[in-house]
Amino acid sequence: MSRIKPRTLKGFRDFLPPAMLARERIADAARATFRLHGFAPIDTPALEHAEVLLGKGGGETEKQVYRFGDNGGRDVALRFDLTVPLARFAAQYVGQLGTPMRLYHIAPVWRAEKPQKGRFREFVQCDFDTLGADSAVADAETLSVIHALVARLEVGGFTVRMNHRGVLNAFLRKNGVEEKSVAVLRAIDKLPKVGPDAVREELTEAGIESAAVDALLDFAGCKGQPKDVLPKAAEVVAGDEAGEAAVERLREVVAAAGVPVGRLEVDLSIARGLDYYTGVIFETFLDDLPGIGSVCSGGRYDNLADLFSTQPLPGVGASLGLDRVIAAMEELGRLDESATPARVLVTVMEADRVPDYLAAARTLREAGVAAEVYPTAAKFKKQMQYADRKGFRYVLVAGASEFERGVFAVKDLQSGEQTEAALADLAAAVAP
Amino acid sequence: MSRIKPRTLKGFRDFLPPAMLARERIADAARATFRLHGFAPIDTPALEHAEVLLGKGGGETEKQVYRFGDNGGRDVALRFDLTVPLARFAAQYVGQLGTPMRLYHIAPVWRAEKPQKGRFREFVQCDFDTLGADSAVADAETLSVIHALVARLEVGGFTVRMNHRGVLNAFLRKNGVEEKSVAVLRAIDKLPKVGPDAVREELTEAGIESAAVDALLDFAGCKGQPKDVLPKAAEVVAGDEAGEAAVERLREVVAAAGVPVGRLEVDLSIARGLDYYTGVIFETFLDDLPGIGSVCSGGRYDNLADLFSTQPLPGVGASLGLDRVIAAMEELGRLDESATPARVLVTVMEADRVPDYLAAARTLREAGVAAEVYPTAAKFKKQMQYADRKGFRYVLVAGASEFERGVFAVKDLQSGEQTEAALADLAAAVAP
Repeated sequence: MSRIKPRTLKGFRDFLPPAMLARERIADAARATFRLHGFAPIDTPALEHAEVLLGKGGGETEKQVYRFGDNGGRDVALRFDLTVPLARFAAQYVGQLGTPMRLYHIAPVWRAEKPQKGRFREFVQCDFDTLGADSAVADAETLSVIHALVARLEVGGFTVRMNHRGVLNAFLRKNGVEEKSVAVLRAIDKLPKVGPDAVREELTEAGIESAAVDALLDFAGCKGQPKDVLPKAAEVVAGDEAGEAAVERLREVVAAAGVPVGRLEVDLSIARGLDYYTGVIFETFLDDLPGIGSVCSGGRYDNLADLFSTQPLPGVGASLGLDRVIAAMEELGRLDESATPARVLVTVMEADRVPDYLAAARTLREAGVAAEVYPTAAKFKKQMQYADRKGFRYVLVAGASEFERGVFAVKDLQSGEQTEAALADLAAAVAP
Repeated sequence: MSRIKPRTLKGFRDFLPPAMLARERIADAARATFRLHGFAPIDTPALEHAEVLLGKGGGETEKQVYRFGDNGGRDVALRFDLTVPLARFAAQYVGQLGTPMRLYHIAPVWRAEKPQKGRFREFVQCDFDTLGADSAVADAETLSVIHALVARLEVGGFTVRMNHRGVLNAFLRKNGVEEKSVAVLRAIDKLPKVGPDAVREELTEAGIESAAVDALLDFAGCKGQPKDVLPKAAEVVAGDEAGEAAVERLREVVAAAGVPVGRLEVDLSIARGLDYYTGVIFETFLDDLPGIGSVCSGGRYDNLADLFSTQPLPGVGASLGLDRVIAAMEELGRLDESATPARVLVTVMEADRVPDYLAAARTLREAGVAAEVYPTAAKFKKQMQYADRKGFRYVLVAGASEFERGVFAVKDLQSGEQTEAALADLAAAVAP
């Protein structure tokens, strides 16, 4: 028979057990944190009407989308993010669910773009949002979730950086560069990467006067503890009503969220895209790996669902970068290499004692200890090699002599120590 | 602006919080059970080369598949099950992972077929498999997982029914109806639904002699406790070597798996499809809802990956029917209607005490109690209506008088009782 070469599409990934165990751990941490803060899960279809996902125009996004005609001739597409489906969902069910909605959504999305290092055509997004409330409480709760979630992951120290679009906008207005905001924000965004001289050059080339450039660079350099930066921000926006309200909102969020000092900074240069966000903005950087970019980002937006509904739905939310967290854990050497979720391998020595080996596994499982039974009475060496390769912590062994004495030999593969335990004591013998 | 009607494609579903909370509970139970038994997670792409998913022929399956040309002109398709991706995965990584492989895969699949009641174009499959081992241990471990998993779900009493294809085949051989096996198995499969008279008629029409029809109906009626049915099965297959080995395998599996008496039956009529399975077969029926069909089914197959590899990979596995379990829980009235994972709603009475309300929520969360803070100081009645609608168990209330005394009022929405507690005692006040 002619065989087919096993392979995946470019830009797509298989996840083998060690990688998938890590991904499940992170997704579980996200789910647990979201739930602890009262966010409830939703799911939407992977495939939707292209018109729903792309709007009537289509436009630039369209090239990045998997779009095709289905068997019934419908124009359909795979979702390319979770934001558009959330907007459609919120518009469709707001009458039934009411507001506020506190929702999370962890699901894959697809992009037909060119695959690059660290960018894939299929990846999981991990979003949470509070819809139907424009308040400091909702902003502060978002910050609480970001802090609690990243603290729960094994990625070391981190800092949440916060800003408010209203501060940026007031500054631009006061310096007469509001109509050049796109060029200004784009240049400032590069500050951490290219440094102040290159940004100065770019701003000057954009036709911004020298005094305004100085003010901009001074402004963009404002970051640090909220108690230090907020007074400075208040000065910057003084006299601009919307700007003053923005600084007041930042104060309220800092006061309410209770994030430990040192974990939260206000950074006036953060813009996070030019159009979408309208209020607070959040980014999260790892102390040991700032270059990896923000691992959890989000902010407040004015009206999520206006493509689908006349009902205003202001919201605030954020998204965990699952792939970035994995990459960070890998670089930090904190990815467990184990290929099994089980702590114990029960080896099989005597083919006619199979029920006893399974009884040992059952005893462990009933005590909450994950255990696997080797499937055949293969040579002992082969079973031990399997235990090493997969990364079990303990191996149970019982041959004629152990059965005679009613015990199992318990080998600790980490320390090399060996003990013996009767069935009733097995769980204790392999306890952490 | 012209708005787009929010809607999903026919045959696709949105999951609102109460439904999604139930689905996550079941998927979590599956994951926990698989891990406890040493199965490790994998994932594969939703989108693959059409050739990989459909083989070189395509054929009947093709009409049920979402298949299209991607932006690079590649012939691609959405996976329609998890079995073909597992076969491809196993062939591709067997050199790296070695055998035995104990894997689970929980992921959505897509079928372009006509939507019907209870059948959807997108649904989650929940599979676990042991690959590279043809042994009673691997069969018994599969049975252990099925039993442990269904016992963990809130679906009441249940029975796992087991058979072995070798018993069926031996019976057909001995009765000279081997070449009519397709017609015979199809007829027997209908026995529980249409009864013996209709099956007798169908078998007679298929050209099977009266004596063989009697034997078939007698055989298909054999089900019950393993200790009662296995001796009967041994009689039926006596003299047929493969049949005798099949009965012996059933004996070994029953002896090893340790499933409590009454939870496991041998049922000689079970066939589960005509081609795929070659060894033990499992089905699981709920005592209170037999009509809903099997909620967890599977069995042993000879060679998973022969489309992709010359390496023989015998395996055994099963699949949890997530949608059927949900349907069962709904019919049994065991679906929680709550729309929130949180136990406590912290209401907001005084806008200038927002940090105190969030501190209360933080205290609860640190004690592991899920809590939500209402986002604004809305009218009390509105906040209480929200608490009722979403199904919180407790509501915390603090106005000027409570703040003066340093307490929160704790309302139990279930009992109607009200107490007061200081911050340090809040978690205890809302403990289960």
